[in-house]
Amino acid sequence: MLKVAILGGSGYAGNELLRLLLSHPDVKVTAVTSERSAGLPVSDVFQNFRNTDLKFESMNVESLVKKADLFFLCLPHKASQEAVAFFYGAGKKVIDFSADYRIKNRKTYEKWYSTPHSFGHLLKKAVYGLPELHRERIKDCSLVANPGCYPTSSILGLAPVIGESFIDSTSVIIDSKSGTSGAGRNPAQQLMFCEVNESIKAYSITMHRHTPEIEQELSFLSGRNIKLIFTPHLVPMDRGILSTIYVRLNKKTGLRNIQKIYRDYYRNEPFVRVLNNGVYPATKHVRGSNFCDISVFLDKRAGNGHTLIIVSAIDNLIKGASGLAVQNMNIMYGFEETAGLTSSPPSP
Amino acid sequence: MLKVAILGGSGYAGNELLRLLLSHPDVKVTAVTSERSAGLPVSDVFQNFRNTDLKFESMNVESLVKKADLFFLCLPHKASQEAVAFFYGAGKKVIDFSADYRIKNRKTYEKWYSTPHSFGHLLKKAVYGLPELHRERIKDCSLVANPGCYPTSSILGLAPVIGESFIDSTSVIIDSKSGTSGAGRNPAQQLMFCEVNESIKAYSITMHRHTPEIEQELSFLSGRNIKLIFTPHLVPMDRGILSTIYVRLNKKTGLRNIQKIYRDYYRNEPFVRVLNNGVYPATKHVRGSNFCDISVFLDKRAGNGHTLIIVSAIDNLIKGASGLAVQNMNIMYGFEETAGLTSSPPSP
Amino acid sequence: MLKVAILGGSGYAGNELLRLLLSHPDVKVTAVTSERSAGLPVSDVFQNFRNTDLKFESMNVESLVKKADLFFLCLPHKASQEAVAFFYGAGKKVIDFSADYRIKNRKTYEKWYSTPHSFGHLLKKAVYGLPELHRERIKDCSLVANPGCYPTSSILGLAPVIGESFIDSTSVIIDSKSGTSGAGRNPAQQLMFCEVNESIKAYSITMHRHTPEIEQELSFLSGRNIKLIFTPHLVPMDRGILSTIYVRLNKKTGLRNIQKIYRDYYRNEPFVRVLNNGVYPATKHVRGSNFCDISVFLDKRAGNGHTLIIVSAIDNLIKGASGLAVQNMNIMYGFEETAGLTSSPPSP
Amino acid sequence: MLKVAILGGSGYAGNELLRLLLSHPDVKVTAVTSERSAGLPVSDVFQNFRNTDLKFESMNVESLVKKADLFFLCLPHKASQEAVAFFYGAGKKVIDFSADYRIKNRKTYEKWYSTPHSFGHLLKKAVYGLPELHRERIKDCSLVANPGCYPTSSILGLAPVIGESFIDSTSVIIDSKSGTSGAGRNPAQQLMFCEVNESIKAYSITMHRHTPEIEQELSFLSGRNIKLIFTPHLVPMDRGILSTIYVRLNKKTGLRNIQKIYRDYYRNEPFVRVLNNGVYPATKHVRGSNFCDISVFLDKRAGNGHTLIIVSAIDNLIKGASGLAVQNMNIMYGFEETAGLTSSPPSP
Repeated sequence: MLKVAILGGSGYAGNELLRLLLSHPDVKVTAVTSERSAGLPVSDVFQNFRNTDLKFESMNVESLVKKADLFFLCLPHKASQEAVAFFYGAGKKVIDFSADYRIKNRKTYEKWYSTPHSFGHLLKKAVYGLPELHRERIKDCSLVANPGCYPTSSILGLAPVIGESFIDSTSVIIDSKSGTSGAGRNPAQQLMFCEVNESIKAYSITMHRHTPEIEQELSFLSGRNIKLIFTPHLVPMDRGILSTIYVRLNKKTGLRNIQKIYRDYYRNEPFVRVLNNGVYPATKHVRGSNFCDISVFLDKRAGNGHTLIIVSAIDNLIKGASGLAVQNMNIMYGFEETAGLTSSPPSP
Repeated sequence: MLKVAILGGSGYAGNELLRLLLSHPDVKVTAVTSERSAGLPVSDVFQNFRNTDLKFESMNVESLVKKADLFFLCLPHKASQEAVAFFYGAGKKVIDFSADYRIKNRKTYEKWYSTPHSFGHLLKKAVYGLPELHRERIKDCSLVANPGCYPTSSILGLAPVIGESFIDSTSVIIDSKSGTSGAGRNPAQQLMFCEVNESIKAYSITMHRHTPEIEQELSFLSGRNIKLIFTPHLVPMDRGILSTIYVRLNKKTGLRNIQKIYRDYYRNEPFVRVLNNGVYPATKHVRGSNFCDISVFLDKRAGNGHTLIIVSAIDNLIKGASGLAVQNMNIMYGFEETAGLTSSPPSP
Repeated sequence: MLKVAILGGSGYAGNELLRLLLSHPDVKVTAVTSERSAGLPVSDVFQNFRNTDLKFESMNVESLVKKADLFFLCLPHKASQEAVAFFYGAGKKVIDFSADYRIKNRKTYEKWYSTPHSFGHLLKKAVYGLPELHRERIKDCSLVANPGCYPTSSILGLAPVIGESFIDSTSVIIDSKSGTSGAGRNPAQQLMFCEVNESIKAYSITMHRHTPEIEQELSFLSGRNIKLIFTPHLVPMDRGILSTIYVRLNKKTGLRNIQKIYRDYYRNEPFVRVLNNGVYPATKHVRGSNFCDISVFLDKRAGNGHTLIIVSAIDNLIKGASGLAVQNMNIMYGFEETAGLTSSPPSP
Repeated sequence: MLKVAILGGSGYAGNELLRLLLSHPDVKVTAVTSERSAGLPVSDVFQNFRNTDLKFESMNVESLVKKADLFFLCLPHKASQEAVAFFYGAGKKVIDFSADYRIKNRKTYEKWYSTPHSFGHLLKKAVYGLPELHRERIKDCSLVANPGCYPTSSILGLAPVIGESFIDSTSVIIDSKSGTSGAGRNPAQQLMFCEVNESIKAYSITMHRHTPEIEQELSFLSGRNIKLIFTPHLVPMDRGILSTIYVRLNKKTGLRNIQKIYRDYYRNEPFVRVLNNGVYPATKHVRGSNFCDISVFLDKRAGNGHTLIIVSAIDNLIKGASGLAVQNMNIMYGFEETAGLTSSPPSP
């Protein structure tokens, strides 16, 4: 059994990660940290876990490093920089949930996150943990930068076509809608039930920090320097991200052809489901699972040529965070890639 | 007191219209029809109305025509064609909630609604009932085609700029998100609580019937033949439409300048609120009111030049249907334009 | 126009009170205070109010006392004690939303609220502001203690029968279910969307502070010293309280007879609707209105004699707080009792 | 691998059962029937199941009987009577989700369900499938009557104490609150999103069909003829039942003693969690799992002696239906009792 530790485990991603790991056949969780809740049983903080004996402990890296072989870091960006460096330096494997090691270009990171990066030399050691793009490199690496939730939804939606010559890669617009768990577990006025319920709104227009992450991976895939428009929205539901993506075509291409490109691209992927022609993804159909559902449509009417419309749906806490981390772990350690992730989405 | 009748009043728009009219200072409701519920007290069908004596009656146009001066028709498209012609022909005033008299071009109507239009000669008598565009014509007309909910949200968002030379009017993308009441009150599997709750999905991509209606009015405003992309989504909430609209600029224009254009355009409008720089509309802030909140943003990063991002929010049953109809009535009869519509949005 | 001021107006009850007063025909709001938001436009804090010029100000009682004739105090309990005494002492009228002047027995107050009452001499000046019980006394008083939301729902449900000889007044069980706005607007972990949504739970079993308030009024009505069981629950919705109330009968009495007692009791009440036999109240049917819907049922099967089951529904922010306060104001000043409260419940 | 078939599998319980069985280590699903959807891939009807090849088939019992050893019957009551008899007569094992074989007294069944029971001789062969009460008999039986959702929640809440001498078993009141999936998947006006959302209501007061089922098991446990009051409510959420149960005590007994009785009673139960003193169950903490959370409280104030207040929470589709059926199957076949049911509740 692989010994794993979760650092900063008292948020929603930590809760979900713990849940997945507790039923994983090849793994034993040896430590979970939380500064706020140090000393408390996990089941006092997360009342869903009433039948576990785990206790939150304070983050003492010197003692933690002896307890596990793989460390899941669910710390805020910036705080994660040094913690990653420590465990990596100690010869341990790390899956980092923060943005600290996702952005390859240090200056880009420093600009969008308004903070210096003190471990720039490690950026090239980190692999962006999206198996559908980087599976081979994940196998051999010791440091996985686990993708953001919006980027996972957006990149998987665009990956099959972004490098195609019929795509105008300067025209990408991503309109994303997210459930509220993506905003985290810290109390905040705007996240209270009575503020979120019965409402939808956009936020962070033109300046959401997931933008450069999406651009980096799409640029990598296409060989072009992609800049795009990304607009997130807050939806009155716990979980789920639906991304509606618009890209103009440089030249006419049939929808069937594009659908075939998607099917071929994801043919062997255990967690990406390309839907039949005309079928719409809904976040409910992936809730509670590691699936990403994708469907593509073609607009031939509007004034400026044909436009591809891609819709993708994920559970932001699973394929968009903790399930993806488990998938990455499975790949790193040679476990069955779907181990611990086999549950179908419950419905309703 | 103006005598008014509501035909086809057992849906959600009818319920809301009745509520607004019952507290309107200048109006008396003399009849409400429903085939399904004929003979039943309104309060048996709509349990919110437990203190009214109104009863639903069957739609006998010969007897109804004598009961009122103004007829609100909340019938399905196609069914409304003849009913409108009847009351109009009898010298009555009509506000029609259906799409039957919204589309000026008969062929366009027949193509999108897959049905012939048997009263094409009346199309030019009808005024598209968006006061912000057609107030003067509404004053003098006898037949108002009350706009659709998505079109109201979309057109108000674009009206101030669509005719500007700095706008690329071939590039319009409207990504709309609607509460569930917009889908009507007839039982359907996909509208059940357990299907809608905790989920978001897109639907009718490239083929929603509100598309030609939006295009007609924007073409009228801009003097260009506009074809655009419109994508509706279903959100787990009762009411509200948020439209996120993307339009590329032909040439650079400052955000402050654009904001000024919006403020000037809506300066005297009682129900359109242009928000301060950086403030986001949310459907909750207009819920239960006739307001339309609009905010504009400018993307200067993405690959193909600057893009204007407009966000608009309405209550789909009020500004998107029944409140708008009351506003049109107020204009037609010279009542205070805000009569019966003065309530602020309740919150939460 | 009556000049009114709202003190402590930045919570949900304050928001709703302001909304109702802004459309009240006989009233002008001259001041709204908030320590947290002093100096900010009301529309920055409550984005629903984007078309008002009011600003929050700090609570300086010396300057406030000159600005209005009637003061609505929406302060926390204990903080309200002295503020009420100040305005009352200055010859002003006061409607107090806190619990400070609701409980006539000072020791009972001090025990349940764990705080001394420093203005005990004013307790007998205060009238418990439930018009259905105390209308005549409200007319002539200067200090109204505005009831709590759960008590309003519970007392109105029981008032018609609690004094009847066929009722076992020792057997009252009130099982109440409340929307989340009742818990207030201050950020708290347990009130975040992701904690409340898709869940129901009980809380404060046997120790909720509204218990002695309900007992006081039912004791007053029945002439007996009533102690009862009150169990509140938190429901994933913004507004509404549904109370399901169980009382055993001392002797058999027909349901029709009991229904007649309810109808007679509330015959002239503008805001209490006794439903037809077999019809169920739902919070949605009173949402956004000052109505209280009541229906009664009779269990003849269970082991210990017949049991009366009463179900009542209110909007906790209107009939349970701000609407009730406006109704009290209307009575105190001789306005039409329904002024500003005529809107039917919107649906859905 | 045990071969199992699901009959009537196109409802919410069928969907959840299929999900659980598809990830069960010892089982293979060989057939799923649905008259409405016969011939369709399961994934067309339940879009969560996009990666299964199963197709719905019509219910031909002659061909079905050869396909499996265990039959899960998710048919409506009455329809299930004959189907159960057929498979049972053919020597197969059956787990029946309907009420047809739950009520031992044929006359009681016929009265509450308004239909004759044509297979009364089989009633004594059926075991009421609540393992916490009847584990030993389930092991050896061929026909399990799977309990209703409300009864599971209610009986587990009362089982440890109902037979105690300090309990007044004539005083039981069960106030239950259920998510909407319990009402089934057939389209109905009152189950549409806009009717259920933002509302709570009671229904079927004094006449819900789960009443005799609860009474039967509590009578069996206590050796008394128990008649009780059961009031169900509809809550705006997908899943979950919270039951708040009131029982008077005949003589004073300490809360600690009662808590000890609960802990002892459920000490070896894998799925019942008795919470610590003062901790409240919430349906969210059991959602997606087979757990039943129970907490007990004691009221010493109210007028008629001490009252025990018990709160229990389950996921109505899992512990209240499909998970319970899987648990019963595990017991019948000697599988690990928790097989296929090990997942912790996801949160949020």
